Amino acid sequence: MAENKIPYKIFLTEDEIPRAWYNVRADMKTDHRPILNPGTLQPMTESDLEPVFCKELIKQELNDKDRFIEIPEGIRDFYKMYRPSPLVRAYCLEEALKTPAKIYYKYEGGNTSGSHKLNSAIAQAYYAKKQGLKGVTTETGAGQWGTALSMACGYFGLDVKVFMVKISAQQKPYRKGVMETFGASVTPSPSDTTEIGRKMLEQNPDSSGTLGCAISEAVETAVKSEGYRYVLGSVLNQVILHQTVIGQEAKIAFEKIGDYPDVIIGCAGGGSNLGGLMLPFMADKLAGKQAPYFIAVEPANCPSMTRGKFAYDFCDTGMVTPLAKMYTLGATFSPPSNHAGGLRYHGMSPILSQLYHDGYIDEARAVMQSEVFKAATLFARHEGTLPAPESAHAIKAAIDEAVKCRETGEEKTILFGLSGTGYFDLGAYMLYNEGKLVDLVPTDDDLARGLSAIPEVNL
Amino acid sequence: MAENKIPYKIFLTEDEIPRAWYNVRADMKTDHRPILNPGTLQPMTESDLEPVFCKELIKQELNDKDRFIEIPEGIRDFYKMYRPSPLVRAYCLEEALKTPAKIYYKYEGGNTSGSHKLNSAIAQAYYAKKQGLKGVTTETGAGQWGTALSMACGYFGLDVKVFMVKISAQQKPYRKGVMETFGASVTPSPSDTTEIGRKMLEQNPDSSGTLGCAISEAVETAVKSEGYRYVLGSVLNQVILHQTVIGQEAKIAFEKIGDYPDVIIGCAGGGSNLGGLMLPFMADKLAGKQAPYFIAVEPANCPSMTRGKFAYDFCDTGMVTPLAKMYTLGATFSPPSNHAGGLRYHGMSPILSQLYHDGYIDEARAVMQSEVFKAATLFARHEGTLPAPESAHAIKAAIDEAVKCRETGEEKTILFGLSGTGYFDLGAYMLYNEGKLVDLVPTDDDLARGLSAIPEVNL
Repeated sequence: MAENKIPYKIFLTEDEIPRAWYNVRADMKTDHRPILNPGTLQPMTESDLEPVFCKELIKQELNDKDRFIEIPEGIRDFYKMYRPSPLVRAYCLEEALKTPAKIYYKYEGGNTSGSHKLNSAIAQAYYAKKQGLKGVTTETGAGQWGTALSMACGYFGLDVKVFMVKISAQQKPYRKGVMETFGASVTPSPSDTTEIGRKMLEQNPDSSGTLGCAISEAVETAVKSEGYRYVLGSVLNQVILHQTVIGQEAKIAFEKIGDYPDVIIGCAGGGSNLGGLMLPFMADKLAGKQAPYFIAVEPANCPSMTRGKFAYDFCDTGMVTPLAKMYTLGATFSPPSNHAGGLRYHGMSPILSQLYHDGYIDEARAVMQSEVFKAATLFARHEGTLPAPESAHAIKAAIDEAVKCRETGEEKTILFGLSGTGYFDLGAYMLYNEGKLVDLVPTDDDLARGLSAIPEVNL
Repeated sequence: MAENKIPYKIFLTEDEIPRAWYNVRADMKTDHRPILNPGTLQPMTESDLEPVFCKELIKQELNDKDRFIEIPEGIRDFYKMYRPSPLVRAYCLEEALKTPAKIYYKYEGGNTSGSHKLNSAIAQAYYAKKQGLKGVTTETGAGQWGTALSMACGYFGLDVKVFMVKISAQQKPYRKGVMETFGASVTPSPSDTTEIGRKMLEQNPDSSGTLGCAISEAVETAVKSEGYRYVLGSVLNQVILHQTVIGQEAKIAFEKIGDYPDVIIGCAGGGSNLGGLMLPFMADKLAGKQAPYFIAVEPANCPSMTRGKFAYDFCDTGMVTPLAKMYTLGATFSPPSNHAGGLRYHGMSPILSQLYHDGYIDEARAVMQSEVFKAATLFARHEGTLPAPESAHAIKAAIDEAVKCRETGEEKTILFGLSGTGYFDLGAYMLYNEGKLVDLVPTDDDLARGLSAIPEVNL
């Protein structure tokens, strides 16, 4: 290939790491509806949230005024260890697809935690440390968030108690191992260390756990332990905010090479990866400028945007959290088994839900697991990077868009988020290689049952 | 930290990826002794090697004239997907150690194969493809080499048959999974697909396999299969040659920041990582210029340089390969169990052996496993990257050197090679976390037995 081509990887300098996070709420035409106290149906206030969350993070959660929120130097120093992440031109994939499209991906899986989750984990750990806390509690399912938080807390010398869904802890012992190496204590959930855990175990001693129960145990532990708060890896405004470093870096990189994406694609679970990549470009759309076509990709087994309802709902299965207005399949909805644990969430970030509802996110698309792994394998062989199954949802859509360009001859610039590595998902790849992955989708009855459990909130 | 500091990560541009590999043999005052046919004790010729190896690679293996060997564009294109690798300033580790030393590491674990092995795998696959071969065979123990070769062959559409030591295949099923995802066929060794494998199984149906047996099966399969050749991931001159991209990049990066290492440290198994990092700086020493102090770090359980003999010996346990003059513990030496599979080799690259024998490598040092994991954990928590146990041997020595600087007040510049990621070694980390790792070293009797099996070759 010619030497005067745009490089395969566009790296920014460390000085170009964003100095502020972008708060899209300051620009949104219609802000998302406030989160509500489920008892009073009144908006949650700072003081309502203080027993559970860090003070500074609550301020960020409720901030709808400031377009930019400065990134403290202590966080920027940590970002410098693994950021800026590369914007990669997928030359080899383009060749394999014989497409005139230019395909780019922003790769967030190069750090030891293996995903973009570290961008928010380090911020949350920083504010916990600054507040003088001893430690934090959280839950983890697939383990990406727990790993990222363990790294961040290890760096600041904070204690971290991770409640890991029992079945995940058993299926992915190495995830537990890496968290412990960074100093975390990992408790399979349900456990006998909390009231809710003991109650669950009493009802069902063989319970393999749920994310809902792990959340409840983590919150209970935070509230009852002196000097602890609870932290969360997606859905919340603060998390979406921290993740905007991804899209801001991508935007600068595109400026450097004199290009701009026509299409932006991200996988969507709770919304942190999609939001982080998309929102700095969404700023252009909200300002009435030229902007990309935005596509959210979700798994067909957990289709909150494509088959859910835009309504107030609980954020957890246990129905102890505040109510949020969002696309939801119902807090009791249980997606059929698949191998993209990071996308198995019944709801969607309130910010992203509002933007989708108002037509700013152009399209949501649900894809089948087998197609996702087919795309992941094609990508791995040509681009030399093994993607996380979650991220491969975006790859699937990017390939489909590139193939459309081959048919129409359009030279579109496609950008997708490669949010994580597949190192910890080889069990799923092996099943796919052996032809043993099954595509499961919820039945209409499953969906109806979940949707009917959404509370009636006439606000 | 101040913005005008040297960045945490020094990236070169893709145009700065070396255009040629550095062949140190052209500069060595005393070349290594030739490899010998074990039957005739005559030096192996190109035609002797042709049934087993690719033609172009044989030329590289025997080349002692050309200082630089051009890297073909097809290989450089692949390098661009994951190179240049970053030279990282370990600011956070320095702070933790309170050392005036400047610590740098060249990180080769950022690609999906997880180690530096890909630098040679892609070169070997390229020449096999160019020769019109159908595929290649190889063996793998810990799995780093097999993974890298699978990626490289997947990229060129070459078939690859990997013989994986049976116990490793059982202990590390995910390594097998990633190889298969890239299209490789992985056969646990001993297998019933080869004569030597069947013979081994007949003698011991429950054999968990050895690297020696896997080599023999891979060679037999290559020789007996139309259109196949055998490839190897370390020890050979060609491999050391390909790995010199590491040190060349490091040298350019140091020029950019106006610094030069006082000490270079690498872990040493077969020599490919150490040689790759060190030799481009060794060129300065061979030219009589200022040069770093070179330290090779090996595991105390397999101490070929510190306790072996500089002698002609077989390269494999099965004693079917040519004889090489090298530091060796004897081809039958079996190191006690540990968790740095990539360093469990009885010998050492003939090039590196000669340089050590002649005093150009200043020091070889053997370290205990528990100290290695302690250093690895410290490094991970402060630098945010989980190292492979092999690479952590270099970290251990780098920390020791930095601590010495704290005591003497010297502001030395220390460079070490971080050859790989620890993602696939979490089982070992978990044992360490639980206090269950044991330091095993060979007894004097073990060593004497191995050394006594080295053949008498009076040349």
